[in-house]
Amino acid sequence: MSTLEQTAPEQTAPEQTTGARRASVPATREEVLASARRARVAAAELAVATRAIKDGALRAMADAVLDRREEILRANALDVEAAVAAATPDSLVDRLRLTASRVEAMAAGLRELAGLPDPVGTIVRGSVLPNGLELQQVRVPMGVVAIIYEARPNVTVDAAGIALKSGNAALLRGSASAHESNKVLVAILSAAAAAAGLPADAVQLVPGTDRESVTHLMTARGLVDVIIPRGGAGLIAAVVNGSTVPVIETGVGNCHVYVDATADHTMALQILVNSKARRPSVCNAAETLLVHADAAPTFVPLAVAALREAGVVVHADAAVRELVGDVPGVVPATDEDFDTEFLSLDIAAAVVPDIDAAIAHITAHGTGHTEAIVTSTLAAAQRFTARVDAAAVMVNASTAFTDGGEFGFGAEIGISTQKLHARGPMGLAELTSTKYVVTGTGQIRASS
Amino acid sequence: MSTLEQTAPEQTAPEQTTGARRASVPATREEVLASARRARVAAAELAVATRAIKDGALRAMADAVLDRREEILRANALDVEAAVAAATPDSLVDRLRLTASRVEAMAAGLRELAGLPDPVGTIVRGSVLPNGLELQQVRVPMGVVAIIYEARPNVTVDAAGIALKSGNAALLRGSASAHESNKVLVAILSAAAAAAGLPADAVQLVPGTDRESVTHLMTARGLVDVIIPRGGAGLIAAVVNGSTVPVIETGVGNCHVYVDATADHTMALQILVNSKARRPSVCNAAETLLVHADAAPTFVPLAVAALREAGVVVHADAAVRELVGDVPGVVPATDEDFDTEFLSLDIAAAVVPDIDAAIAHITAHGTGHTEAIVTSTLAAAQRFTARVDAAAVMVNASTAFTDGGEFGFGAEIGISTQKLHARGPMGLAELTSTKYVVTGTGQIRASS
Repeated sequence: MSTLEQTAPEQTAPEQTTGARRASVPATREEVLASARRARVAAAELAVATRAIKDGALRAMADAVLDRREEILRANALDVEAAVAAATPDSLVDRLRLTASRVEAMAAGLRELAGLPDPVGTIVRGSVLPNGLELQQVRVPMGVVAIIYEARPNVTVDAAGIALKSGNAALLRGSASAHESNKVLVAILSAAAAAAGLPADAVQLVPGTDRESVTHLMTARGLVDVIIPRGGAGLIAAVVNGSTVPVIETGVGNCHVYVDATADHTMALQILVNSKARRPSVCNAAETLLVHADAAPTFVPLAVAALREAGVVVHADAAVRELVGDVPGVVPATDEDFDTEFLSLDIAAAVVPDIDAAIAHITAHGTGHTEAIVTSTLAAAQRFTARVDAAAVMVNASTAFTDGGEFGFGAEIGISTQKLHARGPMGLAELTSTKYVVTGTGQIRASS
Repeated sequence: MSTLEQTAPEQTAPEQTTGARRASVPATREEVLASARRARVAAAELAVATRAIKDGALRAMADAVLDRREEILRANALDVEAAVAAATPDSLVDRLRLTASRVEAMAAGLRELAGLPDPVGTIVRGSVLPNGLELQQVRVPMGVVAIIYEARPNVTVDAAGIALKSGNAALLRGSASAHESNKVLVAILSAAAAAAGLPADAVQLVPGTDRESVTHLMTARGLVDVIIPRGGAGLIAAVVNGSTVPVIETGVGNCHVYVDATADHTMALQILVNSKARRPSVCNAAETLLVHADAAPTFVPLAVAALREAGVVVHADAAVRELVGDVPGVVPATDEDFDTEFLSLDIAAAVVPDIDAAIAHITAHGTGHTEAIVTSTLAAAQRFTARVDAAAVMVNASTAFTDGGEFGFGAEIGISTQKLHARGPMGLAELTSTKYVVTGTGQIRASS
């Protein structure tokens, strides 16, 4: 496991607090825009920073996070205290809580980023045109990247590091619940960047933790180049609907495992259990099992037993229930279950007459994240990969592999489920744009 | 010149009609959504269509356009008649008008598309992961592409052809003024596609020509994958602000030519005049001249003379006016002039103290389209290309080269001025997304 995975930006369940939330900090539109303007100025400097300078800053940030660990933990304790006082569920308090080892993992993540190649300056394509013009398409930073996220303070460090490595200024909008932690973390990162010769404004916490500050941020078109919302479906929908700044949508994953007629049952069971139960709260976890009717009589009872052993509740359609009878851990599936991203130890299960019915089910209910087929038939694998429209399609492999670290990208800012710009795990290159540089010797274009 | 360029989708001036417009055709939200749903069904079929089928359809479309030329011209005559009756300016009537040779150019464009390589299925990257998983990132169609455009009916055929070649269903929303032409053209294209074995719904005219139909289209998130507005700044701003579907912004170009201290003056004059006057109504035309103070005393008088000879009015700052005196064709520049995309035989002109002032001016006033430097100093070229943030940066070449045809892409759906997804001329590849296909032998992911 890479150290980066410990601070992994995998999508998790929406974070809802109960009872009395911490009061949010208000910010005026002008305060948010002023922050974005400073980020633009910083971005112009970052765009021409060498890799050596950027990597030096990342290492300095890692050192600073470790040096000032006590300060971070003290600020975090205030957040945790407030969350506990507000009767926040334990699982959310746990996400919010920093420990010495979590702080070490943050620093390790920054060091790992420093070791990755710099995407900026890569020549994506180049050619000499018939008239002698030299055409190059070169990777350049996006500019100002805004990331809107929920409670986990490690995202603050991850996102800042990934943005900086790819030459972008980061505008971070964390949640009110992590505000004390985030303030200290950003102050540390910003000071370290400045000491290493980069603009202090390269990493900023967006002023305000109220809803309006998000609105100001996502309508700062021209100042902010892209917004990446990372959180529950509600946050993502709000940003997508309200933003005039381009958005990269991340993470809702209603992922399916389809067990074909010719699947190896042992393989299928392992993939199914791993896809569902390895880490149920992340977006690449499976939420629905579909079984070909020919495989169902043998496979469904085995699957239900294996899932129950892993503590999974099976929301079963009539065909599945008929095959397994009335056993504990199996409940009738509602129509809604097949559209639900459980993010828990629950799975919907249905029998389908054939592969095309499986594909049609996935087309109707999937969210375009990760879809898996288990089969030993080449034509089935071909049909499934060609016809299923998703960021990642797995053949005889767990859905859990949809991950920047697993794909070898070294770092991941999230998993895009949209088709524009980036689809699937987003690494450093996905935080860049390109620029055409055309070099001539006085060429002019003929009139048409 | 390629035949495709005759039907070139270069950005042109906003099209405003005067007086009594043709009444727009209303459409309900449900009608627009139904059209989008049919497009989605068609898109699923198009995504797995072979290149042979798609190219056959493009050739069949070309044949049909020629065969039914009379019908097209009759419908177009109705549009032209209505435009003339509404006292539409001649330049707009000219854009609307089809002739036998324009229809031939449409057909030639379709044939040219049939000859281009298919972007779908290209493997963008591929590797074998340490655990033996085979990872491939494969180009796939976007799905449903909506194009919103103004009067020119040739865009209907161009856009349909480019969308189809890249495996996408096209939802075309032309203007009310071209509605009769567009109806006939889309009926012809759709019938030809169906006869060639593709879904008839692969090419559809969006119901309605009223404003509401645009609103319905751009809020059809989940049904439409991307919207490309092509037209004046007003149209683009309306779509960007109102759309929940991802948008690719095209075309506003406030392009600069910067003549550096060491520029070859003959070369600079040719590039300047070509950039400004070759085709002033397109988005890659230059709108501002900036001259280094050291070059100004010699170059500015030559430049003003050359521009005047080309019929260009120079909106000059005080320094330029001082150098040329009170001559016809030179008017004082207002502050606004430096932010204006004239799209006419007008240019703003200013003297700047050095290259950094030129870059700062471009950063403040440019629209991120095309910026050119004329210089013989390597360090100046390096500084300009590194620091100017635009889709295309030209060194010693005309701004007019920012064009899909000139760049060798074979086809162009527009020139993106945003950083997300596509930047600069958009060819067939820019109308695709990617999908990760991961093939294993039963791999599961270790628990972390």
